[in-house]
Amino acid sequence: METKIPISVDCVIFGFDDKELKVLLIKRSQPPFQNCWALPGDRLRIDEDLRHAANNVLDRLTGVRDIYLEQLFVFGRLDRHPSDRVVTIAYYALVNISENEPKPSSFASRAEWIRISKIGDLAYDHRKILDKALRRLRRRFRGRPVGFELLPEKFTLSQLRRLYEAVLDQPLDKRNFRRKMLKMDFLLPLEEKQKDVAHKAARFYSFNRERYEELAAQGIRFEF
Amino acid sequence: METKIPISVDCVIFGFDDKELKVLLIKRSQPPFQNCWALPGDRLRIDEDLRHAANNVLDRLTGVRDIYLEQLFVFGRLDRHPSDRVVTIAYYALVNISENEPKPSSFASRAEWIRISKIGDLAYDHRKILDKALRRLRRRFRGRPVGFELLPEKFTLSQLRRLYEAVLDQPLDKRNFRRKMLKMDFLLPLEEKQKDVAHKAARFYSFNRERYEELAAQGIRFEF
Repeated sequence: METKIPISVDCVIFGFDDKELKVLLIKRSQPPFQNCWALPGDRLRIDEDLRHAANNVLDRLTGVRDIYLEQLFVFGRLDRHPSDRVVTIAYYALVNISENEPKPSSFASRAEWIRISKIGDLAYDHRKILDKALRRLRRRFRGRPVGFELLPEKFTLSQLRRLYEAVLDQPLDKRNFRRKMLKMDFLLPLEEKQKDVAHKAARFYSFNRERYEELAAQGIRFEF
Repeated sequence: METKIPISVDCVIFGFDDKELKVLLIKRSQPPFQNCWALPGDRLRIDEDLRHAANNVLDRLTGVRDIYLEQLFVFGRLDRHPSDRVVTIAYYALVNISENEPKPSSFASRAEWIRISKIGDLAYDHRKILDKALRRLRRRFRGRPVGFELLPEKFTLSQLRRLYEAVLDQPLDKRNFRRKMLKMDFLLPLEEKQKDVAHKAARFYSFNRERYEELAAQGIRFEF
């Protein structure tokens, strides 16, 4: 009985650009699914550590590197590949788009940040993988405040709210959001305010990571 | 470059017996790790659906079947197997011990429920897998009330508390536990009380799943 099975790794890299949530996709230059959009992914080599394989694949296809990837799920349906049995391990991350410009190589003819709302079907079962990653990401954001590493050092509450709105794909009430966030006591109001804006200048805040870790250890939860 | 890799599945089956948290382990009758305790696990066959493989393996080694297994994590370090490269997909579940009596077969010379506190090192990296499953289980229990399917139809608050104490491995304040659980409004007090007990008869409750699902959708959280 054959028990050696091809394994692949696929990466769902979410990106935020101060307005929208996007995903890093490649266009495949070879079959199967030639010319289709797909998640960056490739076979695992037998001498490759699992922890590094996803990063290697991502780098090889898109030039994006040094990303902290988390395991999402294993997809192993018998029919998920058109001609072969391939079990794939999916990873995901959320990064700042401005710091991660993709450059396609290997069998990727293109590598681009694509808006979630513009993504249709993808190669293999990649659409399913993307949807699962989206659910996981949203659960994360609901579970506790995250994503501060995607904002500049000093940010306004509107910037923070836009991040949440982009990830959760829903408008959030301004006052309610403000009240809940400030209540939790890990945002440090700064003296400084926005300059040169047409509207009323908004206050800047910084993120108090120490206080946040304390609260996280106690199991804070952010609900809308 | 070889890209076919042996895959195995390993099962962490937690059991509750109204008092303690245990894990279903097998004793291996063959090398490697002959005569060592291990999680029930075996190679994935190339024609086996991932969703069924874990259940098949569990049944083959322990006779325990029809369990809803959830994916835990993939363990893929190059050195996790003494002689081979094997990537393992771990699954976990929490079941009622009284309904799942193990019978060893195949390369399991024994299959038993073992108290967590009595488990030392295990074959391969199974101890690491067990520890990760424990952390996941506890996070689940903290995240929202779960585990009602392990209690009888009618149960007392003490029975419910014992389940939580067993999983979290910490004593919980009786009054505090009672207050928090009742506040959440998904426990239905019954007219019936315990009979033939030496102490003051405790009230029975039943679990209102419908109300619970409503609250769960709103993101209830159970904190101690």
